[in-house]
Amino acid sequence: MTTYTAINLIARPQGGPIGPALFDVVQKKLPIVGQGEFLVKQSHMSLDPAMFGWMSPDPDSYIPPVELGTVMRSSGIGEVVESNHPDFYVGDRVMGMMGWQQYILSNGAGLNKVTVPLTDETILSIFALPGLTATQGLFNVGKPKKGETLVVSGAAGSVGSIVGQLAKAEGLRVIGIVGTADKADWIVNELGFDGAINYKSENLAEQLAQLTPEGIDIYFENTGGSIQHHVVNRMNAHGRIVVCGMIADYPKAQPDLAPSWIPIIKKRLTIQGFTMPDHFGDIPQLLEKLTPYVMQGKIKHRSHTLEGLESAITGLNFFFTGQNKGKLIVKL
Amino acid sequence: MTTYTAINLIARPQGGPIGPALFDVVQKKLPIVGQGEFLVKQSHMSLDPAMFGWMSPDPDSYIPPVELGTVMRSSGIGEVVESNHPDFYVGDRVMGMMGWQQYILSNGAGLNKVTVPLTDETILSIFALPGLTATQGLFNVGKPKKGETLVVSGAAGSVGSIVGQLAKAEGLRVIGIVGTADKADWIVNELGFDGAINYKSENLAEQLAQLTPEGIDIYFENTGGSIQHHVVNRMNAHGRIVVCGMIADYPKAQPDLAPSWIPIIKKRLTIQGFTMPDHFGDIPQLLEKLTPYVMQGKIKHRSHTLEGLESAITGLNFFFTGQNKGKLIVKL
Repeated sequence: MTTYTAINLIARPQGGPIGPALFDVVQKKLPIVGQGEFLVKQSHMSLDPAMFGWMSPDPDSYIPPVELGTVMRSSGIGEVVESNHPDFYVGDRVMGMMGWQQYILSNGAGLNKVTVPLTDETILSIFALPGLTATQGLFNVGKPKKGETLVVSGAAGSVGSIVGQLAKAEGLRVIGIVGTADKADWIVNELGFDGAINYKSENLAEQLAQLTPEGIDIYFENTGGSIQHHVVNRMNAHGRIVVCGMIADYPKAQPDLAPSWIPIIKKRLTIQGFTMPDHFGDIPQLLEKLTPYVMQGKIKHRSHTLEGLESAITGLNFFFTGQNKGKLIVKL
Repeated sequence: MTTYTAINLIARPQGGPIGPALFDVVQKKLPIVGQGEFLVKQSHMSLDPAMFGWMSPDPDSYIPPVELGTVMRSSGIGEVVESNHPDFYVGDRVMGMMGWQQYILSNGAGLNKVTVPLTDETILSIFALPGLTATQGLFNVGKPKKGETLVVSGAAGSVGSIVGQLAKAEGLRVIGIVGTADKADWIVNELGFDGAINYKSENLAEQLAQLTPEGIDIYFENTGGSIQHHVVNRMNAHGRIVVCGMIADYPKAQPDLAPSWIPIIKKRLTIQGFTMPDHFGDIPQLLEKLTPYVMQGKIKHRSHTLEGLESAITGLNFFFTGQNKGKLIVKL
């Protein structure tokens, strides 16, 4: 093979579903591997809600958007297939920001070797962005205490499912908000959440009251939408709201407004947002915190694998529709 | 004199102006001063926006509401006129929660002696709730750094004016939001703010952009209303929003919604509410922080004194109309 497939971003999303009009599928010649370089064949790549931020031209975005005409940004895992680099050998497994392409020429910057004996799907589902995000958000922003009650939205999602399991392992009562009966069943019966609420089919306010009899101490926000209004009403004094994602509101030209700040005063709440690029320097400490839970078998995951690089294009819409069953991964 | 006047709260506000229907003006017999007790003649009392919370039956409120049929709660300053208490002597000046009444029988709990050589108005304007609130909110929640930009709403109010002056003394750029030209003039020309915006007469978004060329690092919220929407748009990364008061929204049956949480993520903002009852134990440290600024003449104040206990009843409406020029105080 002397060519490979890559997908460039060629237009910005304008709201509404993501489709082929935003991307250009191109064939590229395999590059020559120079001194100090190596070639990676990507085997699996991760689809993450953060991608909507990367595709958007918003000047407030926390990292620069993908430049039009260049390869779409993503994290992935693969194998070194050719190397002129002193530290990376053919056969090494590596992960990092690889982009929507089959092959990546690298000098090693931003790629890390993977040595744990876990599948590609597990690595991308737990040790990549989702697990690091869950660990940073729960422990360093949410500051959980044993016996408290945590509610997490997007609870069957890649971040939410890990947040809930970590919180359970820490001795909290954990209630997850999901959008399908299957997800509700999974987080309660497989992951061990104390309760699940399907926001589409149930009366959220009533269910919340029933499942959080002692109120809510931590709300981990992954979705946006109307859930936050009901949750704020049940927050306890000194509660913490971790704002991690607003997927339901990103596609809206005019995002929904948030609950009045009056309860923030009355209940002395803290609402704090975070994004992982601020914490890339903390990854070793975050992995140190996360790894024992994984090795003790306390963090289960479910991945939803799409086949073929081009499946990424429409696969992104799963974040809006909630159709995916677990961490979205593309198998190349 | 063997009787004195007290004002009991007899009904809860239902929205709209505060009036005589909520209160009962009663004459009481002067109590007999028992062993370990003393009698205070109150000379000045403070009117504070926190009173709306104290009058309200909201179960979420941070301290219990005033019970119907009992004296309305307030802080004040006065003189001991009779004493059977070992530590309080006739002629001592004391301050604390005294309520809407001319005389207070006390065993000393919650009352503190005042020894600084400042007028009653200055004590109530700076060293009572407003100054403590400003100090706690600015330093312990807002965490100001020299060179940053702070915007404060209700900037000519009892808390806002002290927040702004403390921030100026710390080397921040300070912009105040006010509701009259007179207040704008006062905070800029008397208090030394870097700028003022009259939200009623000017284009808030444009003025904010002009006066905060480097964005906003701290927003100190005293009023609620639409200001927060414009401010959030100009917040810098890692900005802090201190939520202290929502006076414009308290009288509304349905308070206005707040800005979407999307910028909280993108800019990694922290929005934190606080109320002083959580920090009554910290008053010595807060006074230690505040006093040097006052003694160095860096904290000016303006008080607006109403005459006579009964003037408190309609005086509370000044918080809604913004007619008061400085800290609202009732002279008994």
